[in-house]
Amino acid sequence: MEKYDSIKAYEIELKKRAVLPEGFKTAATSFTFFPRERPVKTPLKMNLSLLLADRDVTSFGAVFTKNLFPGGPILIGKKRMTGASVRGILINNKIANVCAASGVKDAESVLLHLAGLLGISGTSLLPASTGIIGWQLPMAEIKQNLQPLVEHLSTNSLFDVAKAIMTTDSFPKIRTITIGDGRITAIAKGAGMIEPNLATMLVFILTDIEISRELLQTYLTEAAHESFNTISIDGDQSTSDMAVILSSCKKKPTSTEEFRNALFSVCKSLAEDIVRNGEGTSHVIKVLVKGNDNKVIRAGIGKGIINSPLVKTAIFGNDPNVGRIIGAIGDFLGNHQINIDTGEMTLKLGDTEIFSKGAFLINPDKERTLSDYLKNAQLDPSVKGYPQHNKTVDITVILGEGDETSTIIGSDLSYEYIRENADYRS
Amino acid sequence: MEKYDSIKAYEIELKKRAVLPEGFKTAATSFTFFPRERPVKTPLKMNLSLLLADRDVTSFGAVFTKNLFPGGPILIGKKRMTGASVRGILINNKIANVCAASGVKDAESVLLHLAGLLGISGTSLLPASTGIIGWQLPMAEIKQNLQPLVEHLSTNSLFDVAKAIMTTDSFPKIRTITIGDGRITAIAKGAGMIEPNLATMLVFILTDIEISRELLQTYLTEAAHESFNTISIDGDQSTSDMAVILSSCKKKPTSTEEFRNALFSVCKSLAEDIVRNGEGTSHVIKVLVKGNDNKVIRAGIGKGIINSPLVKTAIFGNDPNVGRIIGAIGDFLGNHQINIDTGEMTLKLGDTEIFSKGAFLINPDKERTLSDYLKNAQLDPSVKGYPQHNKTVDITVILGEGDETSTIIGSDLSYEYIRENADYRS
Repeated sequence: MEKYDSIKAYEIELKKRAVLPEGFKTAATSFTFFPRERPVKTPLKMNLSLLLADRDVTSFGAVFTKNLFPGGPILIGKKRMTGASVRGILINNKIANVCAASGVKDAESVLLHLAGLLGISGTSLLPASTGIIGWQLPMAEIKQNLQPLVEHLSTNSLFDVAKAIMTTDSFPKIRTITIGDGRITAIAKGAGMIEPNLATMLVFILTDIEISRELLQTYLTEAAHESFNTISIDGDQSTSDMAVILSSCKKKPTSTEEFRNALFSVCKSLAEDIVRNGEGTSHVIKVLVKGNDNKVIRAGIGKGIINSPLVKTAIFGNDPNVGRIIGAIGDFLGNHQINIDTGEMTLKLGDTEIFSKGAFLINPDKERTLSDYLKNAQLDPSVKGYPQHNKTVDITVILGEGDETSTIIGSDLSYEYIRENADYRS
Repeated sequence: MEKYDSIKAYEIELKKRAVLPEGFKTAATSFTFFPRERPVKTPLKMNLSLLLADRDVTSFGAVFTKNLFPGGPILIGKKRMTGASVRGILINNKIANVCAASGVKDAESVLLHLAGLLGISGTSLLPASTGIIGWQLPMAEIKQNLQPLVEHLSTNSLFDVAKAIMTTDSFPKIRTITIGDGRITAIAKGAGMIEPNLATMLVFILTDIEISRELLQTYLTEAAHESFNTISIDGDQSTSDMAVILSSCKKKPTSTEEFRNALFSVCKSLAEDIVRNGEGTSHVIKVLVKGNDNKVIRAGIGKGIINSPLVKTAIFGNDPNVGRIIGAIGDFLGNHQINIDTGEMTLKLGDTEIFSKGAFLINPDKERTLSDYLKNAQLDPSVKGYPQHNKTVDITVILGEGDETSTIIGSDLSYEYIRENADYRS
């Protein structure tokens, strides 16, 4: 990620990135409403966004949350993935439409209404929702606002939609890459800390490069595994997470390898954006685990460290309390009865070796170096609207001789996280 | 737990509880030192405590952490458990002696020195340490203070030791129960949130009731499983957790069932004390999972809810954001590919049913009721030194018809937790 020093500088860059692939239109609008579930004094604001292909696309793919209480949109989306084609995606924020009475029925009814306005089939539209769990969609208000949404459709850019799908995200996230004669452009809203009520991550990827449906799905699944599945903000997996890719197939194909690499690159960049963008994030933590040929063990250790509240809070406080890292690793390994030779393990914080041959290597000088290292990677939480720098707190766990690595990216645990989460609905 | 309105009232009660079973002596002392690993301006304080039987006891048992980086004291303790007898336990706070160079050697050397002063065998003493991971014990200062410690030995009470083993615990924890002609008396220091660097729980249980070594070990293992293993403060399992039980066998045996029940009762009370005592705890959360005959699934759901930062922060904010509970349950079930019929599930917060037949049952009136319920169970974090009340936030998950239940107890996630953890060492 590049460095920006103002919202304006970041938005200039984002507008450059937000180029729509050929064959798509987008629109965003908003309205206010009173929820029926909770007493509120001032009405809430909901944004509606639409991503629409010029004609039904037959190359598409998606990955969905594994949460056992999936939202209505997830249930519908999975069904749509078994169909022959997709035309577009309707997205709302504020209410996730999860475990609400008549959630699936409501979403289908909204899509049917929109399809009527567009003169297309309702079953060619995908729904995507993010927001509070358990509440019902404000049906009348949504339906009233579909006509204005359709009237806003344009080929201008993805910028407005990238902003409209935000909830408490502190900046919009757009990544694009030109490839062959076309491009891949993707937007995301963040996970966990960023929209804490739901921890929802929504990713929408559009391309105009011709590619088969089978390859799109395969590459998206693989790319998600190497990007969105390696980030862990608070260990919760949302009821509403989804990533969808659509291709208009308007441009001639590239090599499959070139396409795959471009997709991986876009997804990895967006995943880092998601972590860095949390209002509660004051350090981005990157754990690299190396030297064990079992991917599950490597990822487990990485997530064990990243999800440990004790590690997170120490890093938030710029306190190189490295014992907590060992505690987290040992906790994961012990609980899963994985017996590796911990005497072989080496641990680094930044470039500084802190643990080797079963014992810590720490002294007052190193403590000062490590504390400075943490301070240097800090993000100022008062700066909103753009990413301040691309620094990470790097923790390296070397388990043995092997070359295989896993990387897990997450954030620290701050006062701001508590503030955001203790009553984000009010 | 009873209700107290001052430190004095609580200490009067504690002193009543702190009766030593016959056949034991105790002592506590303290000193200051400069650690070699970290630059500090003012010296740190370390407490030393000793629990000593009048003669070698042959009835004893212990349970230890499963963390794969156990501290030196854990390694030694496990070895001692294979011996014929135990005489006593030397406990220090401030430094956990985990992954420190020569950790086991240092602890053995301290025990040998103490044994020399007592005229007993060094291998009859158990070490127990809690505090910072990775630092070395201040050997010279500890050895100098063993003679004063021995001179303090008395049969007075366990009160001083219960205070001396504290780290950032906000109140000492003692439980006793009279049984037959004797008693069981136990002390604990808290886990996780309470001494965050290490999440260490130390429990020492003394009894004078005659009982076999085999039964003591069996009952302690079972009691720990139903008490200490059901609490979860921040999901981390310490490198130093241990619970030890010693019997002087000075009093005639009770029925085994009576002894077992008394031990369970003491352990369950101490476990609740541990959760309630965290400086960062502003609500004690109790999750009851019922109606599935698989204990692993019940406990997994309970821990999934209790360990969810999103659930914890909502409760901290007295925000009945019940969707997060569903999110946490679904996350656990989905990630572990456990397919239960979620349409059968019922969810209650306090006495209020909030979810049934796959959908939420919420409205503005219920929201007000639930918010009041959370406010009512709040602990005032400015009150230190004694437990304020025994209220809990009760979440009930009913999965089906079965009668089997699991209970998991934990705490919310507060600003105070972050403050405690961001730099507790300074």
